[in-house]
Amino acid sequence: MTMAPKSVLTDAVNASMPLAESLFREIGEKTAAAAGVSREPYGPGEQTAIDILTRAGRTLDLEIASDPFGNLYLTLPGRGRSAPAWLVGSHVDSVPSGGNYDGLAGVVAGVTALAALRRCNVVPPCDITVMGIRSEELSSWYGGHHDGHIGSRAALGLLPAGELESAVNSRTGRTLREHMRDAGFDPAAVGRGSPHLSPDRFKGYLELHIEQGPVLENRGIPVGVVTAIRGAARARSCRCLGAYTHSGAVPHEYRSDAVMATVELVRELDLEWERVRAAGGDLVFTVGKFFTDAGVHALTKVPGEAQFTLDFRSQSAATLKAMKVLAERLARDIGARRRVGFELGQFSVQQPAVMDSGCRSRLLEGARAFGIPHMEIASGAGHDAQDFAHAGFRAAMIFVRNSHGSHNPDEAMDIADFALGTRLLAWMLMQEQES
Amino acid sequence: MTMAPKSVLTDAVNASMPLAESLFREIGEKTAAAAGVSREPYGPGEQTAIDILTRAGRTLDLEIASDPFGNLYLTLPGRGRSAPAWLVGSHVDSVPSGGNYDGLAGVVAGVTALAALRRCNVVPPCDITVMGIRSEELSSWYGGHHDGHIGSRAALGLLPAGELESAVNSRTGRTLREHMRDAGFDPAAVGRGSPHLSPDRFKGYLELHIEQGPVLENRGIPVGVVTAIRGAARARSCRCLGAYTHSGAVPHEYRSDAVMATVELVRELDLEWERVRAAGGDLVFTVGKFFTDAGVHALTKVPGEAQFTLDFRSQSAATLKAMKVLAERLARDIGARRRVGFELGQFSVQQPAVMDSGCRSRLLEGARAFGIPHMEIASGAGHDAQDFAHAGFRAAMIFVRNSHGSHNPDEAMDIADFALGTRLLAWMLMQEQES
Repeated sequence: MTMAPKSVLTDAVNASMPLAESLFREIGEKTAAAAGVSREPYGPGEQTAIDILTRAGRTLDLEIASDPFGNLYLTLPGRGRSAPAWLVGSHVDSVPSGGNYDGLAGVVAGVTALAALRRCNVVPPCDITVMGIRSEELSSWYGGHHDGHIGSRAALGLLPAGELESAVNSRTGRTLREHMRDAGFDPAAVGRGSPHLSPDRFKGYLELHIEQGPVLENRGIPVGVVTAIRGAARARSCRCLGAYTHSGAVPHEYRSDAVMATVELVRELDLEWERVRAAGGDLVFTVGKFFTDAGVHALTKVPGEAQFTLDFRSQSAATLKAMKVLAERLARDIGARRRVGFELGQFSVQQPAVMDSGCRSRLLEGARAFGIPHMEIASGAGHDAQDFAHAGFRAAMIFVRNSHGSHNPDEAMDIADFALGTRLLAWMLMQEQES
Repeated sequence: MTMAPKSVLTDAVNASMPLAESLFREIGEKTAAAAGVSREPYGPGEQTAIDILTRAGRTLDLEIASDPFGNLYLTLPGRGRSAPAWLVGSHVDSVPSGGNYDGLAGVVAGVTALAALRRCNVVPPCDITVMGIRSEELSSWYGGHHDGHIGSRAALGLLPAGELESAVNSRTGRTLREHMRDAGFDPAAVGRGSPHLSPDRFKGYLELHIEQGPVLENRGIPVGVVTAIRGAARARSCRCLGAYTHSGAVPHEYRSDAVMATVELVRELDLEWERVRAAGGDLVFTVGKFFTDAGVHALTKVPGEAQFTLDFRSQSAATLKAMKVLAERLARDIGARRRVGFELGQFSVQQPAVMDSGCRSRLLEGARAFGIPHMEIASGAGHDAQDFAHAGFRAAMIFVRNSHGSHNPDEAMDIADFALGTRLLAWMLMQEQES
């Protein structure tokens, strides 16, 4: 039997859920922190997760491999061993005092899907490799300059070796290179030779992940099929410089008020966001920091300085570009009119990663076939899947409903929702034809 | 001779300028701080100024008196000793590391005017008393609850005794009552019996002061006649409470963004300010502090809290009321629409003090008569004159052009401008008729 009927697959996934639950439980307990879990990149918690997943792979008689960066590969051989394989992955690390599901759910879903296929004695059309990825959450543990997503980018040949030096552990002050080497891996392999993973060897990359926003929960829908991972245009240290003066004695025409100018800038961008939404565009806009100088500011002083951040995210590269250009134009115009100087600094731009349309259609088809309530949804947070998409992989993601957001100990995924997502994933891996 | 011709008065004031310059120089030198001057309320610097002014009064053979709060009174007797007298005053204290002219200029102008009258052997129509006032700048030295302007309010019976306890010296941690007593004065007299100064005994209160804004300087005019001292409606610890969430994953409809809501509030108030100005109204509006929580905020978090201040100042009590009501309405409407809670807290309201119209007309007439370039101008900063106005005195103020604002060591008044203001003051004191 090469293609299991839906009911057989459903039964097999359901019968494999105790494995999923035991993996979540054991990894959660063994990486518990004072609150939630802590699985530091190239630290003991991450290694514990890899070890427990390796043992599960051995029990399921999967082929076990790794790469020089410590990523784990568990493979269920398919009929055509030389045909392009499916890669199923997510990350095993977490933020400090994070939740147990952010990342880990995708790896456990992959292992559970393989267990279900084993259980109904299916030999899939091609190899299926579950990848336990290292160090996606680096930015929560390391300062300095780096773009996170270390395990996937290293394996894909997308990690500049310089980041091994410029990423500095916030607790130890030591570089990522040192920590990677101390953990037993080979930082010298970063950027050397051809990438460990290349798109021609794979049918595509699939990632199941908890939704980190409240959309599925608020709409009462357990599963999402991701349209794209939003890109970002961010300015992390903007300043507006005016002049401190007496708040009572200086009339409007002689003021250089940094707060009033920044307020106008932000409000105009907010209004543009409203217009983009009204036109059906995809955009979120956040000013996460906005502050006058605590050492100088006062109730009765016109503020001479304001600092702030700008974070635009969109599925559309054109929208990101337009917002960046608008911010820069407003800064010039408002600055001139209000006698202040804006310094927005360099925007760091991350391109959106559009999920493969063929894979998305197939996932929607599968969800309909199984009667799983679902919707299409954008991913606002970054994921390893974006690196695979940028490396030329066909990439797709399944979101599972989750409460309380992520990156905190209170994230809450219902295991029944997880079973629905895993069923859809297993079904996808069984399809004979690429769409 | 009872009424000196203008040229005689001009010559006498000019001939008395060396006295003014020597008083500025000696008091400035003896109260010098690392930067500028420091004359702390009921501290040694303030006492030094009082001592030097007392000595000048003795040299000019003026009658010397004081009150239980340490204010100094130097009186040139007039012809009708029982007729209501002119009171000419300003404060002798300063902010820490402040300028030498803020306050002191008004007392030196009074002494210089009396010296000029002595010089041309004029006996004025009524007594003229120059008052060296204590502790106007208390808010720069004392925290806790108080409304500053201690010397004038104590003498006028406007100082609640409770402020002696609730005003706490920021350096020593001790109360104003203790400091006042240690300086040799009588805090128990605060609020006891009838006020030391009552409006029926005086023709009016005149105060010369440097302008603390840039208006006269920018317009190239040496002297201003003050229309009113702006009142204020201030909220000193406003908060907007929303919810921290992921900046990428949470769409607009699920956000409770404290910065975006506060930005809309401030921008709407700014636009209303624009409308008030366009309609010829008097208003300044300042948000001196605006800050997200430095311990929690981040580039990639929707901000869950923002704190800010509101400072409205106007010559019109109705305008202050309208802005306060608008702020409160906007807070409700924007809060409901954006799913955040605003807490503006209590507004502290200080009523505007309109200067006496008869005195203003007389001063404008005098300026025209002497050919002194002048303009009418609002005072944005608070002054002792407002307390006299609130106590029922006819009060008026003369502003003298000043560079670099005040409350800093760089304030710069040209002594020639000061001579013009003092000439106008001396002329006013010589007028037979009330206007």
